[in-house]
Amino acid sequence: MKNAAGREIPDEIAGKKLKPYNGPFSFKPQGRQYSPPLRAVFPGESKILGSIREAIKKTGIENGSTISFHHHLRNGDAVVNMVVDEIAKMGIKDITLAPTALFPVHEPIIEHIKNGVVTAIHGSLNGPIGAFVSEGGKLKEPVILRSHGGRARAICSGDLHIDVAFIAASAADDYGNCNGSLGDSAFGALGFGYADAMHADKVVVVTDNLQPYPVTPISISQTFVDYVVEVPSIGDPGGIKTGTMQITKSPSRLMMAKNVVKFFAEAGILKDGFSFQAGAGGTSLAVTKFLHEYMREKGITGSFVMGGITGFVVNMLEDGTIKKILDAQSFDLEAVESMRKNPDHFEVSHIEFGNMHTGGCIVNRQHACFLGATEVDIDFNVNVNTHSDGMLLHGIGGHQDAAAGSDITVILAPLLRGRIPVIRKEVTTVSTPGDTVDVVVTERGIAINPRREDLIEKVKNMNVVSIEELYKKAVSMAGEPKKPKLGEDMVAVVEYRDGTALDTVRSVKGW
Amino acid sequence: MKNAAGREIPDEIAGKKLKPYNGPFSFKPQGRQYSPPLRAVFPGESKILGSIREAIKKTGIENGSTISFHHHLRNGDAVVNMVVDEIAKMGIKDITLAPTALFPVHEPIIEHIKNGVVTAIHGSLNGPIGAFVSEGGKLKEPVILRSHGGRARAICSGDLHIDVAFIAASAADDYGNCNGSLGDSAFGALGFGYADAMHADKVVVVTDNLQPYPVTPISISQTFVDYVVEVPSIGDPGGIKTGTMQITKSPSRLMMAKNVVKFFAEAGILKDGFSFQAGAGGTSLAVTKFLHEYMREKGITGSFVMGGITGFVVNMLEDGTIKKILDAQSFDLEAVESMRKNPDHFEVSHIEFGNMHTGGCIVNRQHACFLGATEVDIDFNVNVNTHSDGMLLHGIGGHQDAAAGSDITVILAPLLRGRIPVIRKEVTTVSTPGDTVDVVVTERGIAINPRREDLIEKVKNMNVVSIEELYKKAVSMAGEPKKPKLGEDMVAVVEYRDGTALDTVRSVKGW
Repeated sequence: MKNAAGREIPDEIAGKKLKPYNGPFSFKPQGRQYSPPLRAVFPGESKILGSIREAIKKTGIENGSTISFHHHLRNGDAVVNMVVDEIAKMGIKDITLAPTALFPVHEPIIEHIKNGVVTAIHGSLNGPIGAFVSEGGKLKEPVILRSHGGRARAICSGDLHIDVAFIAASAADDYGNCNGSLGDSAFGALGFGYADAMHADKVVVVTDNLQPYPVTPISISQTFVDYVVEVPSIGDPGGIKTGTMQITKSPSRLMMAKNVVKFFAEAGILKDGFSFQAGAGGTSLAVTKFLHEYMREKGITGSFVMGGITGFVVNMLEDGTIKKILDAQSFDLEAVESMRKNPDHFEVSHIEFGNMHTGGCIVNRQHACFLGATEVDIDFNVNVNTHSDGMLLHGIGGHQDAAAGSDITVILAPLLRGRIPVIRKEVTTVSTPGDTVDVVVTERGIAINPRREDLIEKVKNMNVVSIEELYKKAVSMAGEPKKPKLGEDMVAVVEYRDGTALDTVRSVKGW
Repeated sequence: MKNAAGREIPDEIAGKKLKPYNGPFSFKPQGRQYSPPLRAVFPGESKILGSIREAIKKTGIENGSTISFHHHLRNGDAVVNMVVDEIAKMGIKDITLAPTALFPVHEPIIEHIKNGVVTAIHGSLNGPIGAFVSEGGKLKEPVILRSHGGRARAICSGDLHIDVAFIAASAADDYGNCNGSLGDSAFGALGFGYADAMHADKVVVVTDNLQPYPVTPISISQTFVDYVVEVPSIGDPGGIKTGTMQITKSPSRLMMAKNVVKFFAEAGILKDGFSFQAGAGGTSLAVTKFLHEYMREKGITGSFVMGGITGFVVNMLEDGTIKKILDAQSFDLEAVESMRKNPDHFEVSHIEFGNMHTGGCIVNRQHACFLGATEVDIDFNVNVNTHSDGMLLHGIGGHQDAAAGSDITVILAPLLRGRIPVIRKEVTTVSTPGDTVDVVVTERGIAINPRREDLIEKVKNMNVVSIEELYKKAVSMAGEPKKPKLGEDMVAVVEYRDGTALDTVRSVKGW
């Protein structure tokens, strides 16, 4: 069957019926949330275990179990490998890995896939594991790719059942109260951990910084935690603390960033109360910086920034350009430090950020977001998962969520990357449907989704072109893009944030 | 059947089978938490309703519905009466009221009981409504009395299903993010509201202080909230802000308080890391003050105080005598102010405080608590619900929870109140079982539960007497206490915090 994004979707995958994507807000869910087990830890009982191995035993991980992790430690994370290595040593097979995201540091997982220890993945794949999976035939079932909000929804609704969640924490007490704010491995907000902690059958806090009871701030509460394991290190601070993010130096990207701010101004949304979602890419950082400068100059006070938070956003809070930061993921040391000391920099979960099957998520309240793309097509569909060679190399992140929720969703995309057109007739993979994308800003002009007549009317003074023109220009410069040779087998399903099937990713047989 | 507290318990009440109390930690629960409905509030949808009436209509309150409230506004609360009055005007009957507690200010509920608007109550009754219910025959089924932790457990497990929770908030935004920390009606921690917000079918935030989005700190998250109603006033600040609490002036009570501190010192628990639960009664305040003086003098640094928080505890935090405050209920302005500004004064829920069917509640980590009583018996059972005339006049509060969790549970009780013995052969009502009570401190000596041989050994230097001696002394002074004439009908069931039946309260026919 063909879904509302025009993509062919199989009826079922791995024995599970698929619901085709039918528009961003096509249904309201029935029923109740998936409920966690009743627990009982009585006075005098200890939750401290001596090792990861003991935690695996105590939580009953066995062949076929699903285990989850968050990726706040990014490419410095040591916990995923630590746990899966130990599972492998214990002879356990057929694990479903449900991390929020895997990074290059998790390359050893490839061996565990080859050995049958890991046979399914629900989670974002950034880098080598995605490339490996793209070869086809590696896992028992396709990888399920979900947005940050979509994953939270899947967990809260029971679509993704987690047997054991491992929550890495940079500070924890022996009862499991924990956060990512304190300690040498501090990574800031623990936004990804909440859904897992609140819905998994068993929850293990893994920390390298066991502190006296009670640890505060309490990001994840003791009431959700079964066990606590202290390890020498949860990760490499060099990989965790990404340091100050670098703004793009490319003149064309800087121009695009300036044009985004100009577009918002022309569209009339840059006024007191303005809110936006910030990102950490080089061009996104430039937009944030230029927004800051514009707002400060005009005396505009914004309401909040949701993030992916960086020092660029912290600067806006500190000089009063915005009133609040809502932080589900802190990208640099300035963000970590700010959340620790400034009560107006408030930690939130990814349930709050983007789970659309709640009483309303934060993205719904964003006036604007500006997001990247590997490809954009003439229907405004955006690809962020695969490259034009078909390789699965990135997760969805909060892309779907921000696009669907924000009043104005801008995609920042150059016409070409190298000699490869970014604006094309049809994206290789639909990660975010064109229904939720309003504007594409390139170095050669701005295209507005025809759906947004209101915006077209408002920004008449800008260099607005049709998306088809941008596409033609790209083709005239680099030729009609080459298509990868794809296999028949699906290596991944792109799930929309409401749980429907948006697209599939096929194996790559050549380029 | 007779339960483990020696009380006769009927097999069932109002069609529901009762499980008899069988000891404080007699079972671990099976199954899963009660899950809230999946919600969906999409971009552009508003949660703001124009009136309480509209909220009643939108949430579908009808004959037989269960509605809940928290009592952080105490005797200043205007929300319970506001909602029930409107329900009555709309002709809706047969409501189950599930407040955390009702106060004298809620006396108008009596008329609604008479008119059949309210026919059942799950919640604490303080004062006139309790007295009214004690007459017998007023409600369709007995009142269910639960401790703070027990109520949270009942809601989280589904024993107490809430159709609509009304959450009074002193600051909220139009999406329902709210707290009790800010605004003219600020009452501090919103600890009681969490369980209701997280498990009710529908959640309505009622505020007199609608602020721009997003309100932080977020005590109750937008994700749980269906509707927001702004009203002119959620309550009378004179009743909400109880002002600075008054310490007892009675020389004998002050002596008792000093003896509690001496007891803790002799028992060897007054050392670095000491933790306790604080209360707000005149004698409890004295104990807190004397603990503060003792610890400061000896250079002891405590770990945390759980409360019911007052300025007396805040003082301990501010001069470094304790490291943290965990606050589920703020009793005075100093507490409200401290939680607002001091990150080491951390808000927690009553799930975290005392729900024993979680991954461990805070009371489990308390070294000590000191609690009041209307009566104590020679089996160390404690009554806090009824007076010796049998009248149901008080809730359980956190009494059961603190007693079960703390390493040393002290009951502060005078031998007599007026001419009525407080220490007696058998309490009129068992609110907290003697299994969980360690020490009774009176003005005429200290009795230790024989179960605690360790304590008896440690405090040999103190004036320790048997509880029977205290009882005999009380009787010798005032005679064997008179018993109230009780009717056959049960007006209330005292539920233990694990959901079992601890005792029943009968109607009062004379004294």
